[in-house]
Amino acid sequence: MSNPFFLNHGPFDILDLLKIIGISDKKNYSQKKVFDIKDLVNASNKDITFFHSKKYKDFAKNTKASFCITSDSLKSELPRNCIPLVVENILLSTSKVTAKFYPESLNDNFDDTTINISETKLKDKVKFGKNVLVGKNVSIGSNCFIGHNSIVEKNVSIGNNCSIGSSTIIRNTILKDNVKILDNCVIGKHGFGFFPINSKNLRYPHIGIVLIEENCEIGCGATIDRGSMSNTVIAKNTYLDNQIHIAHNVKIGENSIIAGQVGIAGSSIIGNNVKIGGQAGISGHLKIGNNVEIGGGSGVIRDIPDNTKVMGYPAKNIREFLKENK
Amino acid sequence: MSNPFFLNHGPFDILDLLKIIGISDKKNYSQKKVFDIKDLVNASNKDITFFHSKKYKDFAKNTKASFCITSDSLKSELPRNCIPLVVENILLSTSKVTAKFYPESLNDNFDDTTINISETKLKDKVKFGKNVLVGKNVSIGSNCFIGHNSIVEKNVSIGNNCSIGSSTIIRNTILKDNVKILDNCVIGKHGFGFFPINSKNLRYPHIGIVLIEENCEIGCGATIDRGSMSNTVIAKNTYLDNQIHIAHNVKIGENSIIAGQVGIAGSSIIGNNVKIGGQAGISGHLKIGNNVEIGGGSGVIRDIPDNTKVMGYPAKNIREFLKENK
Amino acid sequence: MSNPFFLNHGPFDILDLLKIIGISDKKNYSQKKVFDIKDLVNASNKDITFFHSKKYKDFAKNTKASFCITSDSLKSELPRNCIPLVVENILLSTSKVTAKFYPESLNDNFDDTTINISETKLKDKVKFGKNVLVGKNVSIGSNCFIGHNSIVEKNVSIGNNCSIGSSTIIRNTILKDNVKILDNCVIGKHGFGFFPINSKNLRYPHIGIVLIEENCEIGCGATIDRGSMSNTVIAKNTYLDNQIHIAHNVKIGENSIIAGQVGIAGSSIIGNNVKIGGQAGISGHLKIGNNVEIGGGSGVIRDIPDNTKVMGYPAKNIREFLKENK
Repeated sequence: MSNPFFLNHGPFDILDLLKIIGISDKKNYSQKKVFDIKDLVNASNKDITFFHSKKYKDFAKNTKASFCITSDSLKSELPRNCIPLVVENILLSTSKVTAKFYPESLNDNFDDTTINISETKLKDKVKFGKNVLVGKNVSIGSNCFIGHNSIVEKNVSIGNNCSIGSSTIIRNTILKDNVKILDNCVIGKHGFGFFPINSKNLRYPHIGIVLIEENCEIGCGATIDRGSMSNTVIAKNTYLDNQIHIAHNVKIGENSIIAGQVGIAGSSIIGNNVKIGGQAGISGHLKIGNNVEIGGGSGVIRDIPDNTKVMGYPAKNIREFLKENK
Repeated sequence: MSNPFFLNHGPFDILDLLKIIGISDKKNYSQKKVFDIKDLVNASNKDITFFHSKKYKDFAKNTKASFCITSDSLKSELPRNCIPLVVENILLSTSKVTAKFYPESLNDNFDDTTINISETKLKDKVKFGKNVLVGKNVSIGSNCFIGHNSIVEKNVSIGNNCSIGSSTIIRNTILKDNVKILDNCVIGKHGFGFFPINSKNLRYPHIGIVLIEENCEIGCGATIDRGSMSNTVIAKNTYLDNQIHIAHNVKIGENSIIAGQVGIAGSSIIGNNVKIGGQAGISGHLKIGNNVEIGGGSGVIRDIPDNTKVMGYPAKNIREFLKENK
Repeated sequence: MSNPFFLNHGPFDILDLLKIIGISDKKNYSQKKVFDIKDLVNASNKDITFFHSKKYKDFAKNTKASFCITSDSLKSELPRNCIPLVVENILLSTSKVTAKFYPESLNDNFDDTTINISETKLKDKVKFGKNVLVGKNVSIGSNCFIGHNSIVEKNVSIGNNCSIGSSTIIRNTILKDNVKILDNCVIGKHGFGFFPINSKNLRYPHIGIVLIEENCEIGCGATIDRGSMSNTVIAKNTYLDNQIHIAHNVKIGENSIIAGQVGIAGSSIIGNNVKIGGQAGISGHLKIGNNVEIGGGSGVIRDIPDNTKVMGYPAKNIREFLKENK
């Protein structure tokens, strides 16, 4: 799913992009225009992509992209159709090119385009509280509720029969039908992603969205960050309790149950029918299988296969944990 | 204490209730009208109750209820005066009957009955900020403060000398005298209770309240859920720090001190003079004694007797923990 | 840095202060007027100070204060110029004297002096959302943003190029240039400090502030409490993720990175270039060195020297932790 919200300012001449990432070597490039930046899998021959870890070499081999930001040691994995652009810091260069295509994605200041919902066409359609604000590019289905002081900032699509509580703030998000978001949540802000640079860190662009599918419920005080290059996704009929933090690019499967104060770090993928006990934490870039149960308070730092029950810090087989801790 | 807030739509004919829980067997019931649903202890001979775990068999033996939703294996514990209604899923059936008596308890959408406090009689009595909303069935004592953007939703009773911060949302709650609630709290919403059903979970009704007794203080960003069948209670002079989550039916004793980011799962009972360090978590359905000290970061998964100091995950005697972890 | 915000109601006659702390012994004091209460290091010969732990005896030896609240066993450490005032409960007495000098510091009710920013001179200078309130003694630099429903309560100084999100509440705080605070934060409230007394705890005054230096970013849902006697400080270019709790008197160094749901207890000092993983907790009164890395989920209960990587609960050398937990 490509981002439906941020305006693509492309196409750009490849020479302009080379300038941004500090490549002065002006070869005779067969193609001049670049239309978008996408990951290795989704890029077409009109696009630029990036390749920064051996982990993704199978995707790299088959990419259709015409250009790829990469390193000297990785470039040999790329197919003939894809011209490697060798840089020192792949992610930093990718970030700069992304910002060129999607400059608005860098701005997470409050949305100053919002107006009171009572001044919009939505006023006859939605049941809303006092002081509800709505930004640009917002659509809301039938039979929805939006509580007092909530702000539906720009770039939000809400399905039918949704209920949003009070004092909740949403942007860059799609809610499917029958979704319930409780009070005091913040959904769709950029994730905690930046390049640490002494004296002034550099934020990277977050061009992904938050997608919350049918019948989900999100408890009070949740923070769910939008994705950086891909999306943050909560699949159908998954329930989150209060005070949960979901970082950028996380994907949670269907029918999962996540108790209070759980935190899931960036880019981890959680399966279907997963149960996570209160205060458990899951490190970034992990894969948690289907039908997994994670005990309350656990700290998960490794992948977990399907149909497994774990507990502990670091999390291990739950029987082992309880046996060792009688 | 029976719920003072939700309207009881009973009495109902027992045959109507039987229909709801799928019992078609129409015996010659001596009593036709049922007035309320209550737990085993509080039910009178006009009421229906439920009995779902051997743990409560002593209560079952002495119940005064005329009807009891239960299972085939448990029904023999009930006294002669109580007719067992045998169902497959006790809690699900109980939930359906509760919803029949108290249908409003299922609705936790924002309270659309609220109006600005300046349009109510409370305006001359309370010191309030900008944009303060008040719902139906709200009473407030003398010398109280309510901060900007706070919402006192329906069904709230506030004592004397209370101070509520800004952007705090309260419903279905009783605050006694001298209670202080800081900013950004959400108090009195339903707990994280539902029957997991693939494709669409079923919420169960929460007919309990939150009761916060004299001289308590609740820190910023707290979430305190109301009880399901019983109440969530914080007893006199107990202080909670910031970002604490208290789940449904929890009871916390007097003079306790609970540090930041602690989470207490559903139905646990905490004694008097208890100290809980930051980020500690307490599993559900536990009993923590009086004068207990729980070290910061602990994960408590078993009952703790009076006068004990524990630490660790799982929490154990603190001396043992520190000795093992020199 | 002495507190720039709370009004000092002094000077007071030393005899009045003696009365407050229950000392009736009226010696012939050479000095009659006391101008301020400060810590051992910062007190001048016009001030009163306090000394409550052997840990600070080197500071005590060199204090310039004319009076010092202390105990019988500690008083011998004080220099000749400093008259010991021996009391039973040093911190309680200190608290009472502080409250005499700074009575406003005890009041953390909502700020009822705020007005809508559009009614102030700031309206032409700041880019602001709907329903933004500003209290007394607030200054804001150029090119700043303040989101909807945010409240800049009394005693706040904001530098240039700062961005404050929506529904954020700030008081008693200095933000230097280029600081970004996201949505739903509460910054500058009193810390979780009080004297536990059965039936009614006694709050102690918090006369410190929160100081957030240049280029910092604070994530959604943060709570940062102001200091009690000293300040809470977040130094230059440090980034905090969502749902973090920073207690009173904590000092965090420059260029540090703190992931989601971390909690840092009162008075701990964190060095420069420190990385703290998600959900880690740090106990109070600890010293964490420069260039330290703390793994996600860790519970730190001891000081950590410079250039160390730790993980676990309690946190230990990370290699050791991972080796023991393969």
